[in-house]
Amino acid sequence: MAVGDVTMPQMHVVQGVKIGSAEAYVRYPNRRDLVVFEFAQGTNVAGVFTQNAFCAAPVRVSKTHLAQANPRFLVINTGNANAGTGKLGLENAQQTCVKLAELAGVQEFEVLPFSTGVIGEQLPMERVLSGIQPALDSLNENAWVDAATGIMTTDTTPKGASEQFELDGVTYTMTGISKGAGMIRPNMATMLSFVTTDAPISRELVQLMLKTSVEQSFNRITIDGDTSTNDSCIFAATGAAGGDEISEVGDARYSAVLEILSRVMKRLAQLIVRDGEGATKFITVAVEGGANTQECCDIAYSIAHSPLVKTAIFASDPNWGRILCAIGYAGLDNLDVEKVQVWLDDVQICKNGGAAEDYTEEAGARVMSQAEMTIRVDLGRGQAKDTVYTCDLSYDYVKINADYRS
Amino acid sequence: MAVGDVTMPQMHVVQGVKIGSAEAYVRYPNRRDLVVFEFAQGTNVAGVFTQNAFCAAPVRVSKTHLAQANPRFLVINTGNANAGTGKLGLENAQQTCVKLAELAGVQEFEVLPFSTGVIGEQLPMERVLSGIQPALDSLNENAWVDAATGIMTTDTTPKGASEQFELDGVTYTMTGISKGAGMIRPNMATMLSFVTTDAPISRELVQLMLKTSVEQSFNRITIDGDTSTNDSCIFAATGAAGGDEISEVGDARYSAVLEILSRVMKRLAQLIVRDGEGATKFITVAVEGGANTQECCDIAYSIAHSPLVKTAIFASDPNWGRILCAIGYAGLDNLDVEKVQVWLDDVQICKNGGAAEDYTEEAGARVMSQAEMTIRVDLGRGQAKDTVYTCDLSYDYVKINADYRS
Repeated sequence: MAVGDVTMPQMHVVQGVKIGSAEAYVRYPNRRDLVVFEFAQGTNVAGVFTQNAFCAAPVRVSKTHLAQANPRFLVINTGNANAGTGKLGLENAQQTCVKLAELAGVQEFEVLPFSTGVIGEQLPMERVLSGIQPALDSLNENAWVDAATGIMTTDTTPKGASEQFELDGVTYTMTGISKGAGMIRPNMATMLSFVTTDAPISRELVQLMLKTSVEQSFNRITIDGDTSTNDSCIFAATGAAGGDEISEVGDARYSAVLEILSRVMKRLAQLIVRDGEGATKFITVAVEGGANTQECCDIAYSIAHSPLVKTAIFASDPNWGRILCAIGYAGLDNLDVEKVQVWLDDVQICKNGGAAEDYTEEAGARVMSQAEMTIRVDLGRGQAKDTVYTCDLSYDYVKINADYRS
Repeated sequence: MAVGDVTMPQMHVVQGVKIGSAEAYVRYPNRRDLVVFEFAQGTNVAGVFTQNAFCAAPVRVSKTHLAQANPRFLVINTGNANAGTGKLGLENAQQTCVKLAELAGVQEFEVLPFSTGVIGEQLPMERVLSGIQPALDSLNENAWVDAATGIMTTDTTPKGASEQFELDGVTYTMTGISKGAGMIRPNMATMLSFVTTDAPISRELVQLMLKTSVEQSFNRITIDGDTSTNDSCIFAATGAAGGDEISEVGDARYSAVLEILSRVMKRLAQLIVRDGEGATKFITVAVEGGANTQECCDIAYSIAHSPLVKTAIFASDPNWGRILCAIGYAGLDNLDVEKVQVWLDDVQICKNGGAAEDYTEEAGARVMSQAEMTIRVDLGRGQAKDTVYTCDLSYDYVKINADYRS
């Protein structure tokens, strides 16, 4: 069960974007596990990908293709990550692009492949390839919910965000989807996320906007500290709603669209945490008073990755010593613990490095029992701050990851 | 249930070491939760301590006292870590030393305090102080099992190692104890470990031997990646069995004793992993072919800390893609994945970065179902190697850490 409100909003149509899907039986029968995106001619596309050295075959192919041209199609399968699959895996990812290109009448390098699922097994190519034509046949503008559902693996809920906005009298739309739900500590992007707009944005700025917004969204969430082999995030601007192209960062419309993109990306990233494997709590770890943002992130991730902190939160046990402990081993040089303050929401648990005098177990337990809480840390040594989002560690996390392959 | 053989061996008496204990009711009644060590006059003592910035009050006091003189007494309580306890915690640790010094007729700085248990609560000082005289009254040479039992927290079994050896016709003994069992990713030492010998060793060499042996034992184990606030490891050489003092590293006896110390320390460290919270498997992660030992350790810890690897092992699921993934995100510069080989015991799972052709699920599952296994990684880029020991992540880990405070 996901934490908090994870309802799909109304998923507005993005002009210039069509989505199709098919049941390819990649891993499980009767699932629309093959999803295809078509972008109108002239769409500018940017992507960020995992920094895992064992990045999956489709990630390698996508990076190569994206460097050559703007893609016209994305093809995504779930159930199999096509990672750790060597030369054959690479050929399979390429062959998927070739087949789609052939059927759709575009160049191979205008297709980007994506895979998510179990690592180390070869794709069932016959089934994948035979799913492409039905997926193309079903292309239509109003299939965002199908797409969000199609790319799910251990996700319990499809994830989407959608906004409409006006610039210079033209109404534009931004709509995107994402998926989690384990092996999540993105480093460049999350498992899979696809965000599109029909606003006209230059290719250069599409890339810049994606990088900027990923940094504060997908690069600030963690479920289990495992950076996936397949993390990919795509941002596409079709321009199909008309208007002059946004091609300068000085353009007021640039900031306006970036703000919306950042909000959509943050929502999509947080949805992944809310639906983290076994998650029962949504936790914001906000660190301030750091000398620089890197050390704020180091502290935040140290807390967010601590199995002891995460199990205590699962148990609603205000065992705050574990938070101090995680701060202590984050590896900051010359941390003066007597300047450290820690709060659970509005309850100060640690004052100047020790227990706050007016702290009570009851007050701590009240916050810890909530479905959502903020752990706020003030390091008292500078002006930098940063925030990371995570969830708790429950029996179900172990169950999900021990009982079957995802 | 601890993994493999964790039986206490015959705990040989170390001449010059006496141990006493008492029921002080620090946290639970009817437990000998206060343990005192007495070292004979002339004992040389070394210590290594946690690098956690929020190190506990007793760690701070022990470091200060140890810098002043060789200690004559150690006083250890379980049930309360006296960490995150601010100024009052520091006073309490000091007061414990003052009281013991007074009763035993030594100087305050000749007493080292140790605590383990829950973080962030003040010690019940009245009960601690009133336990000291009974503990002193019970001092005797043959109480190692009592001591190993007395210092347990969530440990399910007392942990000890003991060896006898001969140097230049004199028979010496080395006996030590340790405790875990969660919040274990020592960085300098583990939670608590006390090793003693009646061999005569200079203070300088006692320190050198401890540092050398800790590096390959307590600094190479991890259960949950949480470096405790209280990690402390003490090595004491009483010299009470006679013989000339070992004071040169060139002395052949130096190497002989170091070898025994290293074996004893490794055993005590591995016992902590075998009894890790919720552990059902004992895992050796051996990385070779690295450019340097640091990167071998980085890879080994990345695997050993991955919740996805640990849950797969708990489930006996040879989901080896998770191992590749953890190698991939360890952050090595320019890792050529096509040179990476991975084995589970004798079964090669990954060859040149992809699945080994002759690998079968059956072979992988056979190894994964064992209670003990080695994950061996060859990075193919150098001659360095290193090894880390860990355990799996089970329901019981969550249960132990969620259900009650340890």
